[in-house]
Amino acid sequence: MSEPIWSYVTPGIPDELFDRLPGIPMSKCETRLLILGQLRLKVDSILWDIGAGTGTIPVEIGLLCPKGKIVAIERDEDVAGLIATNCKKFGVNNVEIRVGSAPECLTDLTADPDCICIEGGRSVSEILEYGWERLQVDGRAIATTNSLEGLYAISESFAKLHARNVEVVQSSVNRLETRGNRQVFAAVSPMFIISGEKI
Amino acid sequence: MSEPIWSYVTPGIPDELFDRLPGIPMSKCETRLLILGQLRLKVDSILWDIGAGTGTIPVEIGLLCPKGKIVAIERDEDVAGLIATNCKKFGVNNVEIRVGSAPECLTDLTADPDCICIEGGRSVSEILEYGWERLQVDGRAIATTNSLEGLYAISESFAKLHARNVEVVQSSVNRLETRGNRQVFAAVSPMFIISGEKI
Amino acid sequence: MSEPIWSYVTPGIPDELFDRLPGIPMSKCETRLLILGQLRLKVDSILWDIGAGTGTIPVEIGLLCPKGKIVAIERDEDVAGLIATNCKKFGVNNVEIRVGSAPECLTDLTADPDCICIEGGRSVSEILEYGWERLQVDGRAIATTNSLEGLYAISESFAKLHARNVEVVQSSVNRLETRGNRQVFAAVSPMFIISGEKI
Amino acid sequence: MSEPIWSYVTPGIPDELFDRLPGIPMSKCETRLLILGQLRLKVDSILWDIGAGTGTIPVEIGLLCPKGKIVAIERDEDVAGLIATNCKKFGVNNVEIRVGSAPECLTDLTADPDCICIEGGRSVSEILEYGWERLQVDGRAIATTNSLEGLYAISESFAKLHARNVEVVQSSVNRLETRGNRQVFAAVSPMFIISGEKI
Repeated sequence: MSEPIWSYVTPGIPDELFDRLPGIPMSKCETRLLILGQLRLKVDSILWDIGAGTGTIPVEIGLLCPKGKIVAIERDEDVAGLIATNCKKFGVNNVEIRVGSAPECLTDLTADPDCICIEGGRSVSEILEYGWERLQVDGRAIATTNSLEGLYAISESFAKLHARNVEVVQSSVNRLETRGNRQVFAAVSPMFIISGEKI
Repeated sequence: MSEPIWSYVTPGIPDELFDRLPGIPMSKCETRLLILGQLRLKVDSILWDIGAGTGTIPVEIGLLCPKGKIVAIERDEDVAGLIATNCKKFGVNNVEIRVGSAPECLTDLTADPDCICIEGGRSVSEILEYGWERLQVDGRAIATTNSLEGLYAISESFAKLHARNVEVVQSSVNRLETRGNRQVFAAVSPMFIISGEKI
Repeated sequence: MSEPIWSYVTPGIPDELFDRLPGIPMSKCETRLLILGQLRLKVDSILWDIGAGTGTIPVEIGLLCPKGKIVAIERDEDVAGLIATNCKKFGVNNVEIRVGSAPECLTDLTADPDCICIEGGRSVSEILEYGWERLQVDGRAIATTNSLEGLYAISESFAKLHARNVEVVQSSVNRLETRGNRQVFAAVSPMFIISGEKI
Repeated sequence: MSEPIWSYVTPGIPDELFDRLPGIPMSKCETRLLILGQLRLKVDSILWDIGAGTGTIPVEIGLLCPKGKIVAIERDEDVAGLIATNCKKFGVNNVEIRVGSAPECLTDLTADPDCICIEGGRSVSEILEYGWERLQVDGRAIATTNSLEGLYAISESFAKLHARNVEVVQSSVNRLETRGNRQVFAAVSPMFIISGEKI
């Protein structure tokens, strides 16, 4: 048996270890760590990850939470394949990948989640509102956005849903990157991470 | 038996759950997540945490890595007591707390670490240089600082030690905080996190 | 005649040169420079500065634009006095200070502005909407906020008013500050600066 | 006579108004405002701008300080031409452009500056040290960098030169930018601005 690609118990997989597809968004390592910090998963949590993109959250959670169950939702078949590739690459077995458009496709999911992570999707408000209905009591929802419209839509939805303990974190991390023979500080794209709890 | 205070498998314990002592530094949640992301601990890693302050890193690592061993070093007896209080509060049993001044007191530690995290201390260079000697091959060292002198000292030490894959991340996260009846964006104090690997 | 306290033609007066009152907000130097950069004043512009606080914008603009006219609006008489003190301290003569509550008190102003800067006030939306009516064609409005509600209110008002070329800048500057015998990076409070033009 | 392209007395010219050459660095508007805020020019100041790149600082200063004298130094003839183009475009007449390599070429300059701005160059330390010799008493030097090596070199040079009131500001501004049909927050590349005064 070959050496696993990531043999650590701590999260924070470097971006370059993931397979990528051109144009498909990926939560960068530093932003991903801040998202993980909002999920608050139990040992056997059910997480819906909607708009999972490259699949970095399913992979990190699959490793941190091997007895949990992650459902990754993606509209695009190729992107769903990318998530599968990355899960396989990191030896993650507890991710169920669903090709479909949220919120419609969520009705097929029988088990109610105790955590929902919305990384993308056509209408974050509709997804959040349907997801909230399905979310277990004391469950959490997390949504990320880099746009002002997204920030509004998510905040308004949380207000409308009477979410408790709403938190907004904005990551604006810089990291030293090599450019030619120089090392320069570069900004990781800023991202808002909004979370709330269902009473 | 009472409910544990933190029953989640994911890191990111809210700051307010830790006991505090006035004037004793604490790695804020968002910064702490970025530090965790640099540690890359194995299931049975030995971590030295030097200048552990409030003990947030020992607690988070104690939970993420229950078969690992954390040695927390603190000069001040009261602060060492605070770390013990916080470990107890979160049900963490694999942290050994040592009162002493690094690097001198490190010579008493018999087992070589595979990860060193320097959060404080009189002389980060001396600590890093002694720690490096003791660090296992393929081990990692991480140091944090919010000062320019610290950033220099750490970078120069890593260069002198021929550390591999040196990374510098600067966190400058904002979070929405309640001030009176308003919610305002406030900056989490910016922090540099520098890491390197021993060949 | 005594030496003037600020004898430079470039903006960026250090914060500590201004008189202060406890609890009265002040646009920090770096944020102030970013605000100035959005005002786009002509040589003879009329600027309304609403919620002028410590008066740093009136002072900087009074110096940059000596043939212009600045009307500084403040609800509180003591704060209005502070603005007067700072204008005098920097030898600025073209600031008219009005004690009153915007938007009501703005009806007393006879000349229409070609720039409005809203740094505070009870209702930024009402102020922006009344100010917009009075704003000259091709004029600009700028509003600053550190809150999510403020960001929403301002963005929505600009959308409703069909403002052109709306820009949102978020300052999150760090500066090296002396703490005891160390120099540490500290964050200047993050601030959103939103601007738009009237067609 | 045609309308001037920039008819405002306040600084902060939008980036897109400048002519560009591929690969030639440009101080972005927000960073430029923070640099301007460190220059502290008098009405008749002599400024040396070394590694002037696209020429945004010469243009902004030429407009803010029409009785001052700016000497822009550039190694590359094409880039020098770009500075000339931008000065002409904005009607700036008080910029002298010199093609040459600093610090050697600085010996040809007869008048001592009261401000030096180093935006680039082969060796920032050598330039700063020679420039400091020529700098008038009470003059200021400002250097910008986005690299860790640059930050070290500049800080060490200032320490060696016994510069007074050394300040370090790090800009990490976000701005809302249009990407397709969405408006997303994007980070302006972080930059360190270091300044000091000669006693």
